Amino acid sequence: MKQQVEGWSNSGTALSRQFKFRDFAEAIGFMMSAAVIAEKLNHHPEWTNTYNKVEVTLTTHDKEGLSDLDFELAKAMNELFAIRKN
Amino acid sequence: MKQQVEGWSNSGTALSRQFKFRDFAEAIGFMMSAAVIAEKLNHHPEWTNTYNKVEVTLTTHDKEGLSDLDFELAKAMNELFAIRKN
Amino acid sequence: MKQQVEGWSNSGTALSRQFKFRDFAEAIGFMMSAAVIAEKLNHHPEWTNTYNKVEVTLTTHDKEGLSDLDFELAKAMNELFAIRKN
Amino acid sequence: MKQQVEGWSNSGTALSRQFKFRDFAEAIGFMMSAAVIAEKLNHHPEWTNTYNKVEVTLTTHDKEGLSDLDFELAKAMNELFAIRKN
Repeated sequence: MKQQVEGWSNSGTALSRQFKFRDFAEAIGFMMSAAVIAEKLNHHPEWTNTYNKVEVTLTTHDKEGLSDLDFELAKAMNELFAIRKN
Repeated sequence: MKQQVEGWSNSGTALSRQFKFRDFAEAIGFMMSAAVIAEKLNHHPEWTNTYNKVEVTLTTHDKEGLSDLDFELAKAMNELFAIRKN
Repeated sequence: MKQQVEGWSNSGTALSRQFKFRDFAEAIGFMMSAAVIAEKLNHHPEWTNTYNKVEVTLTTHDKEGLSDLDFELAKAMNELFAIRKN
Repeated sequence: MKQQVEGWSNSGTALSRQFKFRDFAEAIGFMMSAAVIAEKLNHHPEWTNTYNKVEVTLTTHDKEGLSDLDFELAKAMNELFAIRKN
């Protein structure tokens, strides 16, 4: 059975989620907080920003699939999002 | 009587406030959202970050005092802060 | 004849360019500087970051095509990129 | 003899340097790149931004003085700055 993270879809090889914010400034602030955490984990998202939306895909290229780091980063992004009243 | 903005102290020539966050990632995200807004207003803070704290001073150099932009930026920063459950 | 901006391809309805940096920290710093400028122009990119790469698409949704703002933002991003020795 | 890092002054208990940029957007981009690196090192600067200037102080609170991390972060900031044609 595939491991799930709340709000994320798990394709088997990637986790993906869209985050939606009040506006561009909030979306960028979220990305910058997440960037700081991603670099600390040495695991980086593929993500697309369009105004107030951030679409994230997480995968582990070395494994051509999912690793613990994908789940850890997904949860960290959820936490960053959860402390906002979006 | 000096105009007040909630949470800020008004010295007559400057507004100042300290914001405190969960951690460094959150403090940086707040600063980056605020930076986007500051550039839009074409009015920039003097601010100091130390780990999870951001100390902001707002003043209008041209006036050697306070202008509407200081109050506007102070309120915008309050809003950014208020949508976080800090 | 379609208007060109150096380094960008012009599909007629969108401008696009890929920027490549030394590493993630540099790519994120570029995005942050560009975000500040985008908000000032009140014109926002659709952009994807993958580690040291930033893929940008510019279009004007209201016009279903290109406007002056797309060209202005494209040039501003080029300038941000040009001051780096990448 | 006190260890030196180019461009930084060493007071014995802290390293400090002022970085100056073309404008606010560049200063913020630099801070964002440096923030990513700081979190990776788990060592954070005390820094003040005023428009195009960033004033940095590095110290190690646990030691009430300087540690290897201060020198490492100082050098990393120098590198970020050096790849810009400021």
